[in-house]
Amino acid sequence: MSHNSFGHLFRVTTWGESHGPAIGCVIDGCTPGLALSEADIQPWLDLRRPGQSKFTTQRREADEVRILSGVFEGRTTGTPIALEIRNTDQRSKDYAEIATRYRPGHADVTYDLKYGHRDYRGGGRSSARETAMRVAAGAVARKLLAVLLGESVTIRAALVRMGDIAVDRARWDWSEVARNPFFCPDPGMVDAWETLLTVIRKEGSSIGGVVEVVAEGVPPGLGAPIYAKLDSDLAAALMGINGVKGVEIGDGFAVAGLRGEQNADPMRMSGGTVRFESNHAGGILGGISTGQPVVARFAIKPTSSILVPVPSVNREGQEIEVTTKGRHDPCIGIRAVPVAEAMMACVLADHLLRHHAQCGWPALRPAL
Amino acid sequence: MSHNSFGHLFRVTTWGESHGPAIGCVIDGCTPGLALSEADIQPWLDLRRPGQSKFTTQRREADEVRILSGVFEGRTTGTPIALEIRNTDQRSKDYAEIATRYRPGHADVTYDLKYGHRDYRGGGRSSARETAMRVAAGAVARKLLAVLLGESVTIRAALVRMGDIAVDRARWDWSEVARNPFFCPDPGMVDAWETLLTVIRKEGSSIGGVVEVVAEGVPPGLGAPIYAKLDSDLAAALMGINGVKGVEIGDGFAVAGLRGEQNADPMRMSGGTVRFESNHAGGILGGISTGQPVVARFAIKPTSSILVPVPSVNREGQEIEVTTKGRHDPCIGIRAVPVAEAMMACVLADHLLRHHAQCGWPALRPAL
Amino acid sequence: MSHNSFGHLFRVTTWGESHGPAIGCVIDGCTPGLALSEADIQPWLDLRRPGQSKFTTQRREADEVRILSGVFEGRTTGTPIALEIRNTDQRSKDYAEIATRYRPGHADVTYDLKYGHRDYRGGGRSSARETAMRVAAGAVARKLLAVLLGESVTIRAALVRMGDIAVDRARWDWSEVARNPFFCPDPGMVDAWETLLTVIRKEGSSIGGVVEVVAEGVPPGLGAPIYAKLDSDLAAALMGINGVKGVEIGDGFAVAGLRGEQNADPMRMSGGTVRFESNHAGGILGGISTGQPVVARFAIKPTSSILVPVPSVNREGQEIEVTTKGRHDPCIGIRAVPVAEAMMACVLADHLLRHHAQCGWPALRPAL
Amino acid sequence: MSHNSFGHLFRVTTWGESHGPAIGCVIDGCTPGLALSEADIQPWLDLRRPGQSKFTTQRREADEVRILSGVFEGRTTGTPIALEIRNTDQRSKDYAEIATRYRPGHADVTYDLKYGHRDYRGGGRSSARETAMRVAAGAVARKLLAVLLGESVTIRAALVRMGDIAVDRARWDWSEVARNPFFCPDPGMVDAWETLLTVIRKEGSSIGGVVEVVAEGVPPGLGAPIYAKLDSDLAAALMGINGVKGVEIGDGFAVAGLRGEQNADPMRMSGGTVRFESNHAGGILGGISTGQPVVARFAIKPTSSILVPVPSVNREGQEIEVTTKGRHDPCIGIRAVPVAEAMMACVLADHLLRHHAQCGWPALRPAL
Repeated sequence: MSHNSFGHLFRVTTWGESHGPAIGCVIDGCTPGLALSEADIQPWLDLRRPGQSKFTTQRREADEVRILSGVFEGRTTGTPIALEIRNTDQRSKDYAEIATRYRPGHADVTYDLKYGHRDYRGGGRSSARETAMRVAAGAVARKLLAVLLGESVTIRAALVRMGDIAVDRARWDWSEVARNPFFCPDPGMVDAWETLLTVIRKEGSSIGGVVEVVAEGVPPGLGAPIYAKLDSDLAAALMGINGVKGVEIGDGFAVAGLRGEQNADPMRMSGGTVRFESNHAGGILGGISTGQPVVARFAIKPTSSILVPVPSVNREGQEIEVTTKGRHDPCIGIRAVPVAEAMMACVLADHLLRHHAQCGWPALRPAL
Repeated sequence: MSHNSFGHLFRVTTWGESHGPAIGCVIDGCTPGLALSEADIQPWLDLRRPGQSKFTTQRREADEVRILSGVFEGRTTGTPIALEIRNTDQRSKDYAEIATRYRPGHADVTYDLKYGHRDYRGGGRSSARETAMRVAAGAVARKLLAVLLGESVTIRAALVRMGDIAVDRARWDWSEVARNPFFCPDPGMVDAWETLLTVIRKEGSSIGGVVEVVAEGVPPGLGAPIYAKLDSDLAAALMGINGVKGVEIGDGFAVAGLRGEQNADPMRMSGGTVRFESNHAGGILGGISTGQPVVARFAIKPTSSILVPVPSVNREGQEIEVTTKGRHDPCIGIRAVPVAEAMMACVLADHLLRHHAQCGWPALRPAL
Repeated sequence: MSHNSFGHLFRVTTWGESHGPAIGCVIDGCTPGLALSEADIQPWLDLRRPGQSKFTTQRREADEVRILSGVFEGRTTGTPIALEIRNTDQRSKDYAEIATRYRPGHADVTYDLKYGHRDYRGGGRSSARETAMRVAAGAVARKLLAVLLGESVTIRAALVRMGDIAVDRARWDWSEVARNPFFCPDPGMVDAWETLLTVIRKEGSSIGGVVEVVAEGVPPGLGAPIYAKLDSDLAAALMGINGVKGVEIGDGFAVAGLRGEQNADPMRMSGGTVRFESNHAGGILGGISTGQPVVARFAIKPTSSILVPVPSVNREGQEIEVTTKGRHDPCIGIRAVPVAEAMMACVLADHLLRHHAQCGWPALRPAL
Repeated sequence: MSHNSFGHLFRVTTWGESHGPAIGCVIDGCTPGLALSEADIQPWLDLRRPGQSKFTTQRREADEVRILSGVFEGRTTGTPIALEIRNTDQRSKDYAEIATRYRPGHADVTYDLKYGHRDYRGGGRSSARETAMRVAAGAVARKLLAVLLGESVTIRAALVRMGDIAVDRARWDWSEVARNPFFCPDPGMVDAWETLLTVIRKEGSSIGGVVEVVAEGVPPGLGAPIYAKLDSDLAAALMGINGVKGVEIGDGFAVAGLRGEQNADPMRMSGGTVRFESNHAGGILGGISTGQPVVARFAIKPTSSILVPVPSVNREGQEIEVTTKGRHDPCIGIRAVPVAEAMMACVLADHLLRHHAQCGWPALRPAL
């Protein structure tokens, strides 16, 4: 059991606080012989890196990752892969005021209730800074999937809703995602979001959002019937991203309103293989992948560190008003997009190894 | 690692198929000295038992639980608690036809893709019958919580939406839940649901729903900052219930539309203790319980075993139409209600023991 | 984490007390598609069954195993395999006297110190009766190894020392093991042991012993460099057998007296493959199997339940003399022999699946 | 599951190779609020540090540990504690020759058989250098034990045998251990060992040894009846130390020669508490601590990296003679002494937290 690990066979343990000397992770169980270098990881970190537009925190971090073990002569050895990022922009003074004040909606208060002692600088362990290591681990997971599944897996995510403004799926364009600061897949929506977020930011507030992550090329057979379900593990992984309050697979909450024949994805044959005519299931039936795209979605709350004052209390039990200065994302949903992809990659890599262990390697059972 | 266990310190491993000789579970890690007998478990099983109204499967099962180990002279010994229910009504012949046909929306096809061999009788391991053991384990978890937390924890669930018809929260009455066959907390909605489900059933179809589960009296401090988050574990547990496609904590997906100050739950002092003025967070901040009610919700899809024909394929790769006879719940959301309570109880028991291990026993740190 | 499971990917959870209604286990992670029936398990249980000679406990148990889940139409399905044995000969009255008296050398006292409550009948959970389920699980592990490794694995154990009388390795004959009631591999030693044990038994005492277990045909590459070492897991598994106080791999304690060049197993080529010229290492180097026979040995203490009086105390804190009536093995080393084989089989099956997960399936990397 | 972690609730994950840029570990689950700084850890590392006498490897490492997370304002926060040591003396050139040659008795060959790729510099992951992180983790475990058990626990180890020369227990003096370069507890034996090891070293060979580790002040009740036995976990931890081939608890292999009444530790009352009159059991009965000193012993083989030539093969399958230059310990048993203490501390800390989780905190049940 571990409080700071995820995955079972592709197992990632992260450590580090927002304003400590460094953050890092250890990846255990990775297949030996994979080509791997920092260059495979850094680009994904760069996508998540703060300070790239005025719509994310102005903290400036190089987020330069270093591989400290587990790779020799450019290939993984099968021993634990240690990754580390030195923290460089640690303006702890911004947080002096927060040390004894609880931000409503923030983990400040629950940390104190649980541990009686916490690193309050920049949120300490609860800072979204920790997600950098998930992105790094996700990059390794992508390599593993690419090698073991032959480049067939594509994992992409996008912000599909900001506040009350959702993208128009008819205009969905994956290539657009890289062209705007919001990871928005709908070119027609970028301006509206920019307008909304500019207002939110000027008012010192923040706004929630919804992220969707899609994995294509996932072979059928990943997952398990009961507690090691692919959807169950995905739900845990996505709910574990800072600020997430809801998770959906496939049609998600919309299934509540469907009848059996509406929800069922009809099957036909196509080239000797089963083909589903729709994907209400989001690529997972009974906890096991069908071979269709795996589709998940999650809602992320507005940042709780805002300039707008909110009634609160402090460690001494006095009633106060809290406003939070410092450098915060007005919509944490944006930077959650690369994190979502990383978590999907890690969960799939873990389940691929689990499947290998029980049912076979390297070929998964071909569909029909 | 285990495919058929959940929980870490209050660890439940289940086994058994729908039409095998029995189903059972092993609970490992339970505190010694708890008073426990079958009479503590059976009532919860009776709530979930099929065949109690025309709105659930007509399979007749006594679901009589027996404690086979771990209890001596009426008290738990600290050794594994084995529970078992013999299957009595196993009309396997109903399923002969399903053996080679895949029900769209069902795990039939993914099991075959993964394992190449499955027990097709009544869904085998994917049958909701397995959830009886979760309810049994949940009953033990309730005992543990009651003893360690002084009867302060109340865990209740209800069906809050059937198809497109949601309950009116203004009329919410927990005592109503036991009075109707739908676990509906809104006395004004029972008739409408009865009408809806009668139609659905007559048409040989099924319908989705939404279940809400609320735990009151949960002490602050349960959970952990990153991967052992209380909400993350709850998400996994609830997404792991058969047919669930979406999970929410607190305001859930609605947070996407909120601004920071709307989502923050203001804090005031009350009798020397922090009091939250709202509960958008659903009792969990940063993965750790706040002391407020823990509120979760999940959407459950319509049963895929229906009489309405759906295009499909069979094991031989031929295109067919599938209709499923047999005894199926037209709305599996109903019988998911006791299961939801059980999963909440198990997750809380697990996190209580985890908290004890790291931070102290028996008293949790009092709020402020 | 679990207190009552062993193995990670071939995971066995056992439950049950000596005098409860039944004992059982759940095997999770077994490869689907293996032919399996009770007939594959029962013969191994029969080897361990008590009451077969005057040199083991006279408790009469049929030890009839039943498969309750995880097997359909004669093959494993990939879902948990539940095995159960009903207890039939539970003469609890023999133990009334033990309820409040602590047997020196027995777990009576530590159970009370830990749990404050225990099932004292027949040792409850600490009874060697629990090892029946290990033997049953070991039988399933053997099937898995046979299918995945092509019948190449042979796992055999023998009692190699009783009291101060050790077998003569020059006379070692595996086929002799089945021909005498001691699992003795040295036909020239059977009479001496019979004489010794007859005396011990008449005097109401007991005697220790040493068991050796050898697995031949184990492919190279099983294990891991650090904490998941094959020898480390073997040590845990064997030390976990009731009464074991020492474990050795290969030359064991004798290595302390060797020089580097004496301990090293020279390597030569033979038919394109590496061949070791000796096996001081016991088939394991750096935690990983070499392809040579895996050889382990363990010392087991004399039964603590004896007729000879020993000074002790009771639950009330009074000083007493304890003598234990009832039906006890004068040399528990004898019946530990089939258990040793089972533990070896389970550890190898677990490591085979672990290797598959990380490094490949089904073929292990051929030696050189 | 993890290949590079040990412990369950006090969970240590190590990473790093002998000649990589650094080695490190992550400790998860540590109790919050413990005073901790590098000064608590460094002295234990200094004991193990190489190059302190002519009898250990001449590699010069400062082994300066740094805490990178989990500690704030001098106290543990409950979040993961990351420790790191930069490698400074990495003379990789010494190992160029080893890259393609297998040292008999070394993990070289099994790594290649398993992974097909390895970091051959200085043994890579199989280097005893990894044990530095165990010593660091052990220092944290000692702090936890001291705080939770009130300084009552003393954990000490010594080399009790080198080659065929064992210490005289009648002259055992713990204070002597720090006064000689062998961690020898017998002042009368130091000269003999010095003579022996000087010869061994000059001849370019190596020699085995036996280490004993004793924990005093361990409360009764730690451990569990079956697979989470204290002795089973100790056996795994000690067998996991590089080069260990045998492990004993208490009387160890000597129990094989004992009769029941000789092996039983008689109990008497003393001041209202049970007192054992001997400690054949080594402080553990039925997998659970008795309150007596926990005594374990292990045999460690002679270093396989020696100047004496041994027949071997290389990666190309050619028969060769291997001699190993470089800086190697002639008796690795010496530097295993601080490692043994560390492993004992970690196992006890883990079991203390496990006990808390299930049975209570902070007070363990007092003996009788």
